[in-house]
Amino acid sequence: MILNAAQLCKLLHGELVGDGEKKIHGPSQIDKGRPGTVTFLANPKYEDHAYTTGASVLLAGRDFVPKSQLQATLIRVDDVYGAMMYVVEQFSKNGKPQSGISDLAVTDPSCQFGEGVSVGAYACVESDCMIGSGSIIYPQVYIGHGTMIGKDVILYPGVKIYPNTQIGDRTIIHANAVIGCDGFGYRPNEQGHYMKVNHVGIVIIEEDVEIGANTVVDRGTLSVTRIGKGSKIDNLVQIAHNVDIGDHTAIAAQAGIAGSAEIGKHVRIGGQAGIAGHIKIADQIEIQAQSGVHTGKYEKGSRIFGYPAIHYMDYLKSYAVFKQLPDYIKRIEALERQLALTKKETE
Amino acid sequence: MILNAAQLCKLLHGELVGDGEKKIHGPSQIDKGRPGTVTFLANPKYEDHAYTTGASVLLAGRDFVPKSQLQATLIRVDDVYGAMMYVVEQFSKNGKPQSGISDLAVTDPSCQFGEGVSVGAYACVESDCMIGSGSIIYPQVYIGHGTMIGKDVILYPGVKIYPNTQIGDRTIIHANAVIGCDGFGYRPNEQGHYMKVNHVGIVIIEEDVEIGANTVVDRGTLSVTRIGKGSKIDNLVQIAHNVDIGDHTAIAAQAGIAGSAEIGKHVRIGGQAGIAGHIKIADQIEIQAQSGVHTGKYEKGSRIFGYPAIHYMDYLKSYAVFKQLPDYIKRIEALERQLALTKKETE
Amino acid sequence: MILNAAQLCKLLHGELVGDGEKKIHGPSQIDKGRPGTVTFLANPKYEDHAYTTGASVLLAGRDFVPKSQLQATLIRVDDVYGAMMYVVEQFSKNGKPQSGISDLAVTDPSCQFGEGVSVGAYACVESDCMIGSGSIIYPQVYIGHGTMIGKDVILYPGVKIYPNTQIGDRTIIHANAVIGCDGFGYRPNEQGHYMKVNHVGIVIIEEDVEIGANTVVDRGTLSVTRIGKGSKIDNLVQIAHNVDIGDHTAIAAQAGIAGSAEIGKHVRIGGQAGIAGHIKIADQIEIQAQSGVHTGKYEKGSRIFGYPAIHYMDYLKSYAVFKQLPDYIKRIEALERQLALTKKETE
Repeated sequence: MILNAAQLCKLLHGELVGDGEKKIHGPSQIDKGRPGTVTFLANPKYEDHAYTTGASVLLAGRDFVPKSQLQATLIRVDDVYGAMMYVVEQFSKNGKPQSGISDLAVTDPSCQFGEGVSVGAYACVESDCMIGSGSIIYPQVYIGHGTMIGKDVILYPGVKIYPNTQIGDRTIIHANAVIGCDGFGYRPNEQGHYMKVNHVGIVIIEEDVEIGANTVVDRGTLSVTRIGKGSKIDNLVQIAHNVDIGDHTAIAAQAGIAGSAEIGKHVRIGGQAGIAGHIKIADQIEIQAQSGVHTGKYEKGSRIFGYPAIHYMDYLKSYAVFKQLPDYIKRIEALERQLALTKKETE
Repeated sequence: MILNAAQLCKLLHGELVGDGEKKIHGPSQIDKGRPGTVTFLANPKYEDHAYTTGASVLLAGRDFVPKSQLQATLIRVDDVYGAMMYVVEQFSKNGKPQSGISDLAVTDPSCQFGEGVSVGAYACVESDCMIGSGSIIYPQVYIGHGTMIGKDVILYPGVKIYPNTQIGDRTIIHANAVIGCDGFGYRPNEQGHYMKVNHVGIVIIEEDVEIGANTVVDRGTLSVTRIGKGSKIDNLVQIAHNVDIGDHTAIAAQAGIAGSAEIGKHVRIGGQAGIAGHIKIADQIEIQAQSGVHTGKYEKGSRIFGYPAIHYMDYLKSYAVFKQLPDYIKRIEALERQLALTKKETE
Repeated sequence: MILNAAQLCKLLHGELVGDGEKKIHGPSQIDKGRPGTVTFLANPKYEDHAYTTGASVLLAGRDFVPKSQLQATLIRVDDVYGAMMYVVEQFSKNGKPQSGISDLAVTDPSCQFGEGVSVGAYACVESDCMIGSGSIIYPQVYIGHGTMIGKDVILYPGVKIYPNTQIGDRTIIHANAVIGCDGFGYRPNEQGHYMKVNHVGIVIIEEDVEIGANTVVDRGTLSVTRIGKGSKIDNLVQIAHNVDIGDHTAIAAQAGIAGSAEIGKHVRIGGQAGIAGHIKIADQIEIQAQSGVHTGKYEKGSRIFGYPAIHYMDYLKSYAVFKQLPDYIKRIEALERQLALTKKETE
């Protein structure tokens, strides 16, 4: 969507001051305004930026009187925040695909598509899939056979779904994420050669989940890898086979959960943290970035840190000493010298 | 493949008790059974689950007599484990593509394809490639020019292979993995601007290797990045340029091997571990998850841990003290006070 | 490109000794030579390899007289290094796609393409995009609407660009990288459910940037995620929303930069390092691999290491003590025993 300033002003029931022809393709911040964008001034503290912003259009209150020359076209509105939220929402619809199944997609005749589903070019939907109404399958997505997808789901370009996956309503999966690949399971034979363990379990992603770009979720070995409803997973995260993630849990980028770990509800896992396999993390635990969690012994609501992870404050206290260790060693050596001297003196 | 209980029973030469019409699309665990799946009871310890399982069909021994009402259809067989392994294998063939080259794929006329090769929709195979018999190239795969692929290889959807790569028989590469991209090599000029080093080496992946989803293997600078036969690499792993990985080595998710490192045979590398460039890791070394390995001095079979990594038990012992450091500092301070007092007293 | 030895010799104005029919498809190192490749001998120290190399052709100086039988065809040239650089460059052009827009790509009529642009099969270019002259869009790339791409840009297969992204001249993005996806931003409501924050900002990648395979760059929330000119980013790196990366900065594989962090110019970030959100890293700082940087207090040019990161030498000194901690504890205990004894004696 591209609007000019006059069209935008009309949509916002505003009052236009300046050039109505300026073209707008999105919003920006006032201190980082770019040509072709609309920004806003709600807090008088930022007024100085109004005169220097690179944005093409400035939204401000009905009572705003510029103290000097504005470069931007001004639109005065009743509710600046409300107007800006409306603008953000309008432009965020930009580039959303139309409904319908592209002639350039491959979909098996056995599949069922709900109303208003969009399937983009060069997407493949294999046999026996069901895709709920309002869902958007972007170009170049692959959906393996027997997959069940709920309503209003979004699969961004390049997402690859292995067979028999289940995805709940309103779940969003970002570009090039991979769901349902085989887990890392092998049995070594006598020569130490790895024999592959067949992975015939599945992945269940519940409703209102969001999964970041290039994240990977392995399928269960015999059973299920589950991501509970409302949980949010960032980019480049690894979720191994048989992992169970509770509801409303957040996992930041590049974290990794090893096989068969159970993560509670409302857990928060920092970036690049690692959780060992076969342990159980209690509800509401907060794991600091880069921590290595080797045990499930911490209680609900704990905050943990370190490698291996311990209580957050304990780690900080120990690390504060760690940084001073060379000094403490000198103090130990001084003690040894003094004691040797004392002994001599008392002899 | 979807079977009903009666068809499954016939395949297993079993004895059917209950509804033969129930439809089965895969296996499951008895305590996590789902409708549409078949599960098994081999160990009497789990018999309680037989009465509550959500699975549609239950396999059990010839002598199994239910103590109460079963929800699931029962199939009695001679060898429960054997029957279940057969079932797992049958269903794991589910969704495997048919042989033949899709009309919707692009393959250069100079390419050679062995017997029974499958190339899926929207795949591209560039000039001068050879693909061995029985190999499966899923949809949306890209294979750069001059690439040699062995027999019975599987490339899952979205795999991208840069030119001149060599891939051995029976190797499996999971979705969206990237093989053969340029390494991270630059020469800074006087202004500190990075000049790109051309990467004209190749990647050689030997036979029986498995590579996880979204893993990246860089090509050699002038020479070869090699992954030895039987080695298994998990998801989201980074293998930099000129790395050499020995045979039957296992590398867990999100680990990274920096440029020109040499990894021995039967090495095990934990998740999120990092190996520095230009070092040599001896055979059979076990590297704990998240470790940072900066030296190749550890002997064959060592187990190492930490950041930088040291012997496993040494790290654990030092870390045990680390956790108590604030207490030890108090003991040092107490010693200092006591010694000062002792000195005063003896003066 | 495949040449035989005689053709190569002619291109190099060299002198041929041996079989002129041997076919060459690329270069290799003398100690790792492979059939079908050309290698070189410039430093006499490596002469022994000349007799055993597996390469098909050997380049050497005009005055090179073999001491024993060569397996490789010999080409004598005036400037061995110069000839080899020429060879590397010729073969590195191998497999580069031809210009033109594939009949098998989807491009919106509203897009503008410069001269000599190449768009490969199964690529999608959405509405209102501009792609500068000489740029190469490989197969299976997705370019969201409103994206501006400069001249001589290369997007490798499977790259996914979300809408309204800006990419500068000569920038290279490797396979399956994702640019411009939503950042990890949510507001928890009273029940601790995460409400998605709309991401309507953009990504600006300046000129001469290189981005590795499977790397992810999130779009700004309202504003811009920027990667400064000449910066180089390796594979599997995470760049979160609103991050600003200065010019000529290098970031190694699997590193992660959290939201709204500002990274200076000429910074070097090691593999698997993590930078916390909302901090500012000064110019020319060097961050060791796997470090966790929680503060922006370090001065320009500092070298830092550890978790949390401190000055490099300080970390090494503390870690040297860490490794000896069990011994130091014994010394503290010995001091306590001796002091107890001394006190007794003086009583």
